Amino acid sequence: MRRISVFVLFLVITHGGIRAQDRDSALIARLATEILVNGKAYENLRDLTKKIGARLSGSPQMALSEKWGVGVFTSSGADKVWMQECMVPHWVRGGKDMATAYNDKTGKDGKPLAILALGNSIGTGAGGIEAEVLEVTNFDALESKKDQVKGKIVFFSYRFKTSFANPSDAYRDAVVYRASGASRAAKYGAKAVIVRSMTHAPDNLPHTGALRYDTAYPRIPAVAIGLQDADWMSNQLKTAAMRVKLRTGGHFLPDTTGHNVIGELTGSEFPDHFITVGGHLDSWDPAVGAHDDGAGIVQTIEILRALKAIGYKPRNTIRFVLFANEENGLRGGEKYAAEAKRKFEKHLFALESDAGGFTPRGFSLDVSDLQFEKVQPWRKLFQPYGGDTFTRGGSGADVDPLKEAFAIPAAGLYPDPQRYFDVHHAASDVFEAVNKRELEMGAVNMAILIYLVDKYGL
Amino acid sequence: MRRISVFVLFLVITHGGIRAQDRDSALIARLATEILVNGKAYENLRDLTKKIGARLSGSPQMALSEKWGVGVFTSSGADKVWMQECMVPHWVRGGKDMATAYNDKTGKDGKPLAILALGNSIGTGAGGIEAEVLEVTNFDALESKKDQVKGKIVFFSYRFKTSFANPSDAYRDAVVYRASGASRAAKYGAKAVIVRSMTHAPDNLPHTGALRYDTAYPRIPAVAIGLQDADWMSNQLKTAAMRVKLRTGGHFLPDTTGHNVIGELTGSEFPDHFITVGGHLDSWDPAVGAHDDGAGIVQTIEILRALKAIGYKPRNTIRFVLFANEENGLRGGEKYAAEAKRKFEKHLFALESDAGGFTPRGFSLDVSDLQFEKVQPWRKLFQPYGGDTFTRGGSGADVDPLKEAFAIPAAGLYPDPQRYFDVHHAASDVFEAVNKRELEMGAVNMAILIYLVDKYGL
Repeated sequence: MRRISVFVLFLVITHGGIRAQDRDSALIARLATEILVNGKAYENLRDLTKKIGARLSGSPQMALSEKWGVGVFTSSGADKVWMQECMVPHWVRGGKDMATAYNDKTGKDGKPLAILALGNSIGTGAGGIEAEVLEVTNFDALESKKDQVKGKIVFFSYRFKTSFANPSDAYRDAVVYRASGASRAAKYGAKAVIVRSMTHAPDNLPHTGALRYDTAYPRIPAVAIGLQDADWMSNQLKTAAMRVKLRTGGHFLPDTTGHNVIGELTGSEFPDHFITVGGHLDSWDPAVGAHDDGAGIVQTIEILRALKAIGYKPRNTIRFVLFANEENGLRGGEKYAAEAKRKFEKHLFALESDAGGFTPRGFSLDVSDLQFEKVQPWRKLFQPYGGDTFTRGGSGADVDPLKEAFAIPAAGLYPDPQRYFDVHHAASDVFEAVNKRELEMGAVNMAILIYLVDKYGL
Repeated sequence: MRRISVFVLFLVITHGGIRAQDRDSALIARLATEILVNGKAYENLRDLTKKIGARLSGSPQMALSEKWGVGVFTSSGADKVWMQECMVPHWVRGGKDMATAYNDKTGKDGKPLAILALGNSIGTGAGGIEAEVLEVTNFDALESKKDQVKGKIVFFSYRFKTSFANPSDAYRDAVVYRASGASRAAKYGAKAVIVRSMTHAPDNLPHTGALRYDTAYPRIPAVAIGLQDADWMSNQLKTAAMRVKLRTGGHFLPDTTGHNVIGELTGSEFPDHFITVGGHLDSWDPAVGAHDDGAGIVQTIEILRALKAIGYKPRNTIRFVLFANEENGLRGGEKYAAEAKRKFEKHLFALESDAGGFTPRGFSLDVSDLQFEKVQPWRKLFQPYGGDTFTRGGSGADVDPLKEAFAIPAAGLYPDPQRYFDVHHAASDVFEAVNKRELEMGAVNMAILIYLVDKYGL
């Protein structure tokens, strides 16, 4: 009898499991079809990038994009839409950045350089800075030449290494020069720094991004330079001393009011249990931020629209969040977590899309061993849609404070990384660089994960 | 003792296995670095597409590209380079294709339509064809309207279905209208056909491609139409009859001499055992064929260059083949197999890249169950490079005759499919649509497979 019972139990479980998988597959297919046939993500991205454009924290476009977010959430069928106020830093570029390189001996034949001041950097003052250039390929070279640094413009020519199969690893490897180069050089008396852009793009566009000043040293101006001009300068410096005249106008205005824009689908069983999905609404100022992170924004909105359109009633409340100020402050992500904590909310899971609107490969899961085990059988549900590569790793900057505050599992969409650093923080991050299908497939895979977590927990 | 022996044997095997994997990983890393740091694929593609351009079989550019192939194989370090003659069909477009749509009642307000004659189609004659348009959404609709077909231009408005997660499935679903629509309509007396392009691109470019006439019915002119104009025409036809005036000049000239271009790395252990890797050198005439199949061509050459550059001595002879005439005849692939058969060559494996230069996802493997088992442990070697999705399926049109002739295993590179049909057989299939990193990563993954098959067999 015992044997038979176990066998019967086995049949029931297996059969039940198969039927559940079939039902999941069917719902997922409806969700995918809704996004791939009736999707609004691409047209929403066109509006956000072309009608509003670049939207750095504190800019008029920041406010416009917040209003736009409220409107699109509403028309997409959110049960509830609101703005969550948070103070944001207000850095402005303060005019056009300019740099010209001269042969130090002749002083003639000035060549304009393709540069952009780094975000959060201070300006040179109206008169600009002119100084001899000292090239260092890395921090070791800086240390060994520290006696030569005083009064110079230090040129960090550290290369973004194409030998990494995953360009994100090249970025992680090189970005310290953008983040810390200025203070490292200021320590030895440099007047400014020029940093080779964090990219492997075959063009000459400079790529900006945030720096962090070390308060122990003077703040000095810092710019990124395009790869072709960086190579040109390295070449020139092999045979001749160079001077660069630099003028940048970056400065901070007082903090100003920004907002997280939040849309909600209210849970039918557990309205006070929250699942969060989002991206960031702000972008750097020289770019319209189509991949970074317009893609994450319109995917977030699209998941809400599609779930609503197919009539899905989530068990838990799903919060769709357009975070403020990821690029130079992270105040939106921090505010969202702080408010959740203050209200003693119950959070279950958070998902972020902030690695570009490229074809989805899977997810980076910031979860426990047990949770990682639990999601493995889900992979076959993702397989037809391409997002079945599950790796352990970080989730995303904006959901990180929430994850930390509540010790909840979190995930980041992992799109294919090969093209991201072609456009990241550069003027080339435009609508035309985003492919409609790739963008939509990202939304499809995110929607599947949200559905599965809502249904089965994690 | 027995237990100990087994344990020792286990240690030896495991340790040996681990060391072999380490050695493979190390060699693969060198190969990948060579391609990602010193790669020539991208610049070769620039030359092929920009200096030579479109290269349909029989065109002067076909001959130029063959010469170019010989030159690049030679400078890439091939042990042997030669051209293998094969006769190819010589279809020419015969001037600019033109179509204008008129309201059938008024005859006024002619609207030029974005069209391209289908490859292998006959022309309308200099005077053109003018007839009323009969729209059918599919073959069932054609059958139900067969009495209305006579004397009309049949407009197949079957849609390329975006609901398919993989656009290749949408292509397979829709392409029968391009391939057989003309003869199916000619059966009922149609004068010509217009076929909605096999694409989901948001632009209005027509996408050409081969048709096959059924010899049982008259040959009639056939064109592809851009999606926006197709939608416009469908819309017009809801309220008014339309006439279209069509002029195309397609015709065949006598077959002419083309060539497979072959480079070889000679095997150090088994010089008379062959592994083949290739793509096709020809392209449709309205496009420069950057993805289709310039990508496969420069990847093929790059694998040779990289293997040579790192000093790899293959055990077997590796043949790198730029196949002639894939698009409208497959004569190159057939010739290569026939010659191999005639010479009683010993072939081991064939790999093709003809699905675009997009980020690699893995391989479609046309292999036995046992062989599919054998390659599974290799997946972890591909994982860092993204090409670790192995599926069972076809390999590619050009290596298929070889596979059939020798009953050997074969494979096709499986790049991400989302963007391919945006540009496939259209004027948008240009150099700028190919990303350097994605192209190179395809070559990396192909090189890994060639290395593993050369070393371990299949």
